[in-house]
Amino acid sequence: MKPSPKSHPRPAPLLAFGAHPDDIEFGCGGVIANETSNGREAHFVVCSRGEAGSHGKPAQRILEANRSAKLLGASLEFVELDGDAHLEVRADHAIKLAGIIRHRRPGIVLAPSLAENQHPDHPRLGRLVRDACRLARYGGVRELRNAPAHVIEQLFYYAVTAEAEPSDITPVLIDVSSPDVLQAWTSAMEAHITQVSARNYVELQLTRARLRGLRTGSSHAIALFPNDPIVLDSLAQTSSGVRRF
Amino acid sequence: MKPSPKSHPRPAPLLAFGAHPDDIEFGCGGVIANETSNGREAHFVVCSRGEAGSHGKPAQRILEANRSAKLLGASLEFVELDGDAHLEVRADHAIKLAGIIRHRRPGIVLAPSLAENQHPDHPRLGRLVRDACRLARYGGVRELRNAPAHVIEQLFYYAVTAEAEPSDITPVLIDVSSPDVLQAWTSAMEAHITQVSARNYVELQLTRARLRGLRTGSSHAIALFPNDPIVLDSLAQTSSGVRRF
Amino acid sequence: MKPSPKSHPRPAPLLAFGAHPDDIEFGCGGVIANETSNGREAHFVVCSRGEAGSHGKPAQRILEANRSAKLLGASLEFVELDGDAHLEVRADHAIKLAGIIRHRRPGIVLAPSLAENQHPDHPRLGRLVRDACRLARYGGVRELRNAPAHVIEQLFYYAVTAEAEPSDITPVLIDVSSPDVLQAWTSAMEAHITQVSARNYVELQLTRARLRGLRTGSSHAIALFPNDPIVLDSLAQTSSGVRRF
Amino acid sequence: MKPSPKSHPRPAPLLAFGAHPDDIEFGCGGVIANETSNGREAHFVVCSRGEAGSHGKPAQRILEANRSAKLLGASLEFVELDGDAHLEVRADHAIKLAGIIRHRRPGIVLAPSLAENQHPDHPRLGRLVRDACRLARYGGVRELRNAPAHVIEQLFYYAVTAEAEPSDITPVLIDVSSPDVLQAWTSAMEAHITQVSARNYVELQLTRARLRGLRTGSSHAIALFPNDPIVLDSLAQTSSGVRRF
Amino acid sequence: MKPSPKSHPRPAPLLAFGAHPDDIEFGCGGVIANETSNGREAHFVVCSRGEAGSHGKPAQRILEANRSAKLLGASLEFVELDGDAHLEVRADHAIKLAGIIRHRRPGIVLAPSLAENQHPDHPRLGRLVRDACRLARYGGVRELRNAPAHVIEQLFYYAVTAEAEPSDITPVLIDVSSPDVLQAWTSAMEAHITQVSARNYVELQLTRARLRGLRTGSSHAIALFPNDPIVLDSLAQTSSGVRRF
Amino acid sequence: MKPSPKSHPRPAPLLAFGAHPDDIEFGCGGVIANETSNGREAHFVVCSRGEAGSHGKPAQRILEANRSAKLLGASLEFVELDGDAHLEVRADHAIKLAGIIRHRRPGIVLAPSLAENQHPDHPRLGRLVRDACRLARYGGVRELRNAPAHVIEQLFYYAVTAEAEPSDITPVLIDVSSPDVLQAWTSAMEAHITQVSARNYVELQLTRARLRGLRTGSSHAIALFPNDPIVLDSLAQTSSGVRRF
Repeated sequence: MKPSPKSHPRPAPLLAFGAHPDDIEFGCGGVIANETSNGREAHFVVCSRGEAGSHGKPAQRILEANRSAKLLGASLEFVELDGDAHLEVRADHAIKLAGIIRHRRPGIVLAPSLAENQHPDHPRLGRLVRDACRLARYGGVRELRNAPAHVIEQLFYYAVTAEAEPSDITPVLIDVSSPDVLQAWTSAMEAHITQVSARNYVELQLTRARLRGLRTGSSHAIALFPNDPIVLDSLAQTSSGVRRF
Repeated sequence: MKPSPKSHPRPAPLLAFGAHPDDIEFGCGGVIANETSNGREAHFVVCSRGEAGSHGKPAQRILEANRSAKLLGASLEFVELDGDAHLEVRADHAIKLAGIIRHRRPGIVLAPSLAENQHPDHPRLGRLVRDACRLARYGGVRELRNAPAHVIEQLFYYAVTAEAEPSDITPVLIDVSSPDVLQAWTSAMEAHITQVSARNYVELQLTRARLRGLRTGSSHAIALFPNDPIVLDSLAQTSSGVRRF
Repeated sequence: MKPSPKSHPRPAPLLAFGAHPDDIEFGCGGVIANETSNGREAHFVVCSRGEAGSHGKPAQRILEANRSAKLLGASLEFVELDGDAHLEVRADHAIKLAGIIRHRRPGIVLAPSLAENQHPDHPRLGRLVRDACRLARYGGVRELRNAPAHVIEQLFYYAVTAEAEPSDITPVLIDVSSPDVLQAWTSAMEAHITQVSARNYVELQLTRARLRGLRTGSSHAIALFPNDPIVLDSLAQTSSGVRRF
Repeated sequence: MKPSPKSHPRPAPLLAFGAHPDDIEFGCGGVIANETSNGREAHFVVCSRGEAGSHGKPAQRILEANRSAKLLGASLEFVELDGDAHLEVRADHAIKLAGIIRHRRPGIVLAPSLAENQHPDHPRLGRLVRDACRLARYGGVRELRNAPAHVIEQLFYYAVTAEAEPSDITPVLIDVSSPDVLQAWTSAMEAHITQVSARNYVELQLTRARLRGLRTGSSHAIALFPNDPIVLDSLAQTSSGVRRF
Repeated sequence: MKPSPKSHPRPAPLLAFGAHPDDIEFGCGGVIANETSNGREAHFVVCSRGEAGSHGKPAQRILEANRSAKLLGASLEFVELDGDAHLEVRADHAIKLAGIIRHRRPGIVLAPSLAENQHPDHPRLGRLVRDACRLARYGGVRELRNAPAHVIEQLFYYAVTAEAEPSDITPVLIDVSSPDVLQAWTSAMEAHITQVSARNYVELQLTRARLRGLRTGSSHAIALFPNDPIVLDSLAQTSSGVRRF
Repeated sequence: MKPSPKSHPRPAPLLAFGAHPDDIEFGCGGVIANETSNGREAHFVVCSRGEAGSHGKPAQRILEANRSAKLLGASLEFVELDGDAHLEVRADHAIKLAGIIRHRRPGIVLAPSLAENQHPDHPRLGRLVRDACRLARYGGVRELRNAPAHVIEQLFYYAVTAEAEPSDITPVLIDVSSPDVLQAWTSAMEAHITQVSARNYVELQLTRARLRGLRTGSSHAIALFPNDPIVLDSLAQTSSGVRRF
C-alpha cells in the first residue's frame, strides 16, 4: 500500500492571494487556520490596501491585515498592482504574480473565484492567479528567468460571498469544525475592525459555513472550487461525503 | 494531527452496480482493481444477463462476468429487475437495491452515470441506485424493515463510454497507472470474450484512461463523478492535480 | 396592507403541494405566512403521511401537519398517490392533481423543485404538479370533464433543502422579514415535533433564509423558482434587488 | 395610470446605456416608452457615434439618436470612451460611468447583455456598466469623491439581437402591448433612418417582441435579464406568467 | 475527392414522430417539405389522435393529419400508445417504436425535443424515440427478432414551440426559404383547421422561422437539434453560417 | 435538386490562426490536411514565435512552423502582437487581424477555443479572431478602409488540448481517417521537433482523434466547434452521425 500524502514530513506551503486586505480571511480563513494547525506553512499576497472601500484608511487596513494573518498563523506581503477598484487583467500583472509563485514554490494556491457578478477586482485577480500558475511553469518567459520554473499541485478558488460561488465547478468541502480552527477564523475576521463594525460580515461567513456543516453532518465546512479535477491515489483519500438532509 | 482515513484497519466495502454483465469492468474496472489491491472488499451487483445484446448468450455472459469479477478481486451477484433493454425506473426496484445496500453496508457505491444519451438501462440504473442510497437511510420503509438503516459514505458515478460522462459534475481522477492494476483491468475486460471479439471495447477504455493519464502526468487515470461534494479533513488529502498540457 | 398592482379585491388563492407532511413548511412556510397575512387564501395538498420516515407515526404526522397549516393560515387535505418513498411519475397521478387544480382554481401554485439529488418523492411530485398545471388547461381530458378548464397565473418551485435549489432558474426572493411572518413560520416548523426533535431542520431553514436576507439587505428572504418567466406590466413592480455584499 | 406598488409619488429615474446610437432603441425601446408613459424619467448614455458602422455619418447618427430619444420621452447624452468598434474594458471607463450613475442617481439601470457572440462593444459596455453600478457604492474611490455614493435598485440587461440573450439568466417579460407604447417604440426605431434603410432591424425587433407576446397571451413583450434576483414584498407583485402554448 | 452524400441515387427515408396529429407540421413541417421536394421519402408516425385537446374531435383530427401529411409529400400512420395527455415512458413503448424503425429503415429520424417545460407528451415521446433508435440496433431484443437490426444515420429533435428548444444543443439551421417549401408548409399547418381556428399557431411558427431567417440572411429557417454531433467528410459540406446581425 | 456546395469549382480559402508555432497543427492539423487534399487553399497566421516556451529557440520554432505548414499544404505568415505569454485582448489587435481577413477573404476561419483554463494566449487569440471576423464586416472602421469589407462563411474553434474543448457548443466531427491525411497530420506534428522531443504531444492528439473515431465508427475524427449554428440547404448535407458505442 502506497504511503498517504499525509506521511510527508512537511507539506509544500500554501499561497493565498487576496484583492483586498480582508478577502482571504472572509472567503477561506477557516481553511487557512485548519492547514496551519496541521503544520502547513501559509503565506498571503494582498494586492491592494482597500483604499477604495467605504470604511477604513489604508494605514489601518494594513495593520488589520497583518494582525489577522498572524492569528491564522500566516505570513503576509502586499503587492502593488493597479490599486483597489482599479485592477485590470494585464499580462505583466500575471507575470509579476508568477514570479512570487516561483519564489514561494507552493503546493496549494488559493485565489478568489472567477464569478463575474461580485467586486470586479475579485474575478480579475482570480484570472491573474490562474494564468500566473501556468506561466510559472514555462521556461522561456524572459521576466521570470531569475527563478527556476515551478509546478504547483492544485489551484483552488474561494468565494468571498455566496454569490461568488462558481456554478460550474463541483466544490470540495473542507471541514473546519474543530473549535480551535473556528475560533482562530472568527478572531481573524474580527481583526478587520473597520469592516466588521460597518457590516455583519462575520455572521455572513459563519452562516455560510454553518449551512454547509449542517449539510455534511458536521458543525462547519467551507467550499473550495478546484481549477482542475483532483487526482487521488485511491478512494481511501475521500472522507465521507455524507448527506444529512 | 488527525489520523488519515487510511489508518482505518479495513475500509468499508465497495459496492458496484452494473446494468449489464460488462458495464462495471468497462466503465471503472481499473478503479476496482486499485481498491481491492489496497485491501478493500468489492462486490458487484449485475442487473441483467445482457440478453438483448447483439453478441453472446446469457449463459456465456454469466460465466464471463463471474470470471471477470474474480480477476478484479470482487464477488458478484445477479439481480433480476426488468431484464436487459427493458429496465424502468420503478419505486420497487429502488427499494430492492436499497435492501442490498442495507445488507452489504458499503462505504463507497459505484453506479452508471445519469447522462441520458447512452444505453437507456444505464442512466435508469444510475437513478435507481441514487434513490436506493437514500432510501437505505429511511427508518420507516416497510419493505426494508428486516435490516437496519445504513448511511453510505459517497456515491460515485462511472461512465461506460465517453459520451456518458456527466457535463455538470467535476470528476475526481483515480490514478490507475500501477502495472498490476492496469494488467488486472485489461484481463477483466478481455474476459468478456463475446463482447471484445465484436468491438474494440478494450482499446476504447484504455484510450480514455490514457488520455486522462497524459493530462495528469501519469500513465492512466479513470474519472469518477461524485454525487455529492467530497468532504476533506484537510488539503493534505488531495494529491497533486498537476496539469501537464 | 398595500394594494396589489392588479387591484383585485382579493387575489386568487394559493395552492401548495408537498410530498410529505412537513415539506411545504420547511421549504417555503415563510412565503405562505406572508401571503395569508396579506389576505390571500392558501390550501395545502399533502401527498403522503410520511410513513417511510425515520421518525413519527402517520397518525402523529397528520396531526402535526394540520396544526402547522393552521398556524400559517392555510387549509389542508391529504391525497393518496403511491405512498411515502414510493411515488412514481404516472399520468393518472398528474390527472388527479389537475382535478384538484380545477377544483381549487388557484392563481399561484407552489411545488417542490425538480432538482434530482434530493428525496426522490420531491422532484417527482414537482414534475407531476408541473404537468397537472398544464393538463388543467386542456379541454378534452376525459377524466377531468366534471370541472371547467383552468389556467393558473404562475407555478413556482420551492427547495426543501439548499441542495434542492435549481441551478438553471434565476429565483425571485420573497422578503419574509416581518416579525409576525417569521414567528408564524418558525412556529409552523416547530409544530412538526417528531421531525424537529430528531434533526435541526428549523435552524437549517432559518439559516438559509438569513443568508438570503443578508444578501438583500433585509432580515430574511426565501427563494422561489418560477417555472416560466414572470410577466410585469412595468418595472415599478420590481422592488429593489439591492446587493449588499 | 395605475399606482405603483411602492406608492412613490415618482419612481427613481431610469438610466440606459448604449454602445451605439441605436442600441437602446432596438434592444429595449418598448420598455423605455412603457416606463416614461408611466411617469418615470429616463436618460440615455450613448458611448459612441457609430462611426465604425457601414451606414451613416456620425453627425447624422447623433441627430437620429436625439430624435429617437425624444420620441421615447428620454433625455440623452454622449460619452466618449474608446470609440465605435474600439471599446475596451478599462477601470477608468467603469469609474467614468460610475460618476454618471452618482450624478443621475437612478433606480433602474439598463445595459447591453454580456453574451460574447455579438458586436464586441456590447458585452464590454455591459461589463463596464455592471462594474460601474458597484463602484458607485464604494465610498473611497478617489475619482468619485465629488458625488455621494449611490446604490441602484436593479440592473437589467437588454439584448440587441436574439443571439445576445443570456442563456444563464431567467428573464422577466415586460408587456409592451399598449398601442401607444408600440407606436412610440416603432417610431423611435424608424428614426434611425441610416440604419433601417439598410437592414430590416425594425421587423427583427417587432418579430422578437411578437414571439414573446404570443407566448404570454398578450400582443408584444420584451425580455429583460436581471443581474441579481428580483426581491418581491409578496407574490401579488407578479402578474400572471400565463403560458399559452 | 470523395463523392458527396448527395450523389446517392436516393437518400434513405426520413421518419418523423409526433405525439399529436399536428406536432410534426408545426414543429418542422418546412423541413419535411424541403426534404420531399429534394426527392427524399418521408413517413409520419403519430402517437395519439389529439383526443385530450380543447379543440377538434379525434375523427376530424385524423382527417386533418392525413390531409396535412399529403400536402408535405409524406405518408402517415397512427400508433396507439397510452393516448393523448396520458403518455408514459415505458420500455414496451420504446420497443414498439424500435420495431417501426426496423421496418421503415430510415436514415434521418425526427422527434420532439426533450425540453421538459412543454406538453408532457412531447418530451416523453422524444425520449422513447431516442431509446428506440438505440434498441433498433441491438440484435438480442426478443420482441424485435422479426426484423433485422438497423442503424440510423442521425436523430434530430424539433421544437414544437420556442420554449421547447433545447438549451444544451447547438442547432443546425435548415433553410426553408424556397417559396414552394414555404407554401407547402403553410398549407400543411392550415390543414389543421380545428387548431388554427382557435389559436394563431401558424403565425407563431412562421414568426419563429422568420426570426431565424433574418439572422442567417435568408428568408426563413428552422432549427433542428442533433442528438449526436454531426460527422462531416469535409468543411465543404457546411453552407455559410453567415451572421447578419 | 440543387447542386451541392462541393460542385463549386474552388472553395473559398481557409484561414487558420494560432497563438504559437505549433497550435494549429496540434489542434486541427488533420482538418487542414483534409481540406487541402480536397483542393482548398489554406493559410496560417501565427501570432508569436513561441519564445516563452520551455523548449526551442525562436529561430528554430520558425523553421519548424514553416516546414510543418508545408507538409499540410498551407502557406504561413507570422504576425507580431504582444509576444508569447504576453497576449492581451486589445481593440487594435482585433483590427489588425480583421485587416488580414479582408486581405485573405477566407470562407472558413479557424481559431483556438475560448475555454479559459488553458494557455492564456489561446482563448485571448480566439476572442480576437472572433471579434476580427465581425469587424471585417463593418464598413466604417477607419484603420480598415484600404480593403473592402468581407463576410466569412463560418468561424470554427479548435481545441489544442482536451481541456480546451468548449462545453457549451455541440461540435461537428470531421473525419480524418484517410491514410494520406493521417500521415500528413502526423508528419506535420513531428516537424515540431523541439516540442515533441520534450512531451508526447503527438500521442496526445492521435489519442484524442482515435477516441472520436471509435465513437463514430471510423478510424479518426477531429472536433470543431462552430461559433454560430451551421446552416444547411438540406439534410442530405449531413453525413451519418452513427453512434457505435
